[in-house]
Amino acid sequence: MITRQQQKAARKRAAEAIRQAGVKITDEEANSIEVVDFGLNQLEREGVQVLTLVQTERISVKVLVLFPNQTEPEHWHPPVEDDPGKEETVRVVAGSVYFFTSGEDTFQEGFMVEGKAHCYSMRHEIILKPSEQITLAPGEKHWFQAHDEGAVMYSFSTIARDALDQFTDPNIERITRIVK
Amino acid sequence: MITRQQQKAARKRAAEAIRQAGVKITDEEANSIEVVDFGLNQLEREGVQVLTLVQTERISVKVLVLFPNQTEPEHWHPPVEDDPGKEETVRVVAGSVYFFTSGEDTFQEGFMVEGKAHCYSMRHEIILKPSEQITLAPGEKHWFQAHDEGAVMYSFSTIARDALDQFTDPNIERITRIVK
Repeated sequence: MITRQQQKAARKRAAEAIRQAGVKITDEEANSIEVVDFGLNQLEREGVQVLTLVQTERISVKVLVLFPNQTEPEHWHPPVEDDPGKEETVRVVAGSVYFFTSGEDTFQEGFMVEGKAHCYSMRHEIILKPSEQITLAPGEKHWFQAHDEGAVMYSFSTIARDALDQFTDPNIERITRIVK
Repeated sequence: MITRQQQKAARKRAAEAIRQAGVKITDEEANSIEVVDFGLNQLEREGVQVLTLVQTERISVKVLVLFPNQTEPEHWHPPVEDDPGKEETVRVVAGSVYFFTSGEDTFQEGFMVEGKAHCYSMRHEIILKPSEQITLAPGEKHWFQAHDEGAVMYSFSTIARDALDQFTDPNIERITRIVK
């Protein structure tokens, strides 16, 4: 959970990062940024900030912000009814993104979240710089992180059903509780 | 049709407009920009420049560039087999875009392409500024244009099958022939 005050501060910081990256957004959009701590209560270490630009029954477009040294936990997008699961292309706009997917263990530049190695099983490292992108097939496990400079990305995908995403860490709750 | 030289010049101009708008693209992407004259041989009046960032069986993401006072002809995205047709959100990044869709005739700020009124039947005007967007349902007829400053937009959509798009103007060929 996070407090209203934490939510407000993280939103402001994320909106600034988005605008500094040259992505134009309205004030209304800036105020709608979702601050996600995955129920782990350590937002600065494990979390993500999400601005949804488009959300229809077929398409989703988001801007994702990682603060410096923040990691988005390992997860995958399962099939839902007729949908084989979310297909997603992540394209970097600012900063470097350290991406981990299935495949040969090439873990080198990334860092492990302290004490959480059992929650991050994918160790195939792909480093993406601005204007580089990766497409993830439905169901493909992945996690990603920013280093000292933080990062801003687009996520272009089929319909997003975030609440149904699955995570390696059993303690995760996708819907962040906001208190006070 | 356009010549190789025209294609090259238009690509360069479009890449510059995209980068000036703050959208980061690779040189390889810049060199892949599609210059489309719709077979009408008046690119500066009726045409569009298209950079495809993502194209899968489910999703398409493009950057569209309109040169000053260029108009993209009226068209729609028909059903294809199981697909009800392309659903598309256009989001403006730079410049103003004059959008025309079905609905009450509110044509006011836009201009008609000289001698082509019979090819532009939609007269419901929606003016979009940077960070504003519109979502078009499958099959919805639309056309759009830039004025003196030109425009850069994102197009986020379900799978694009450009060659199957339908146009009001019977003289249009969607696939531009490049000569010499």
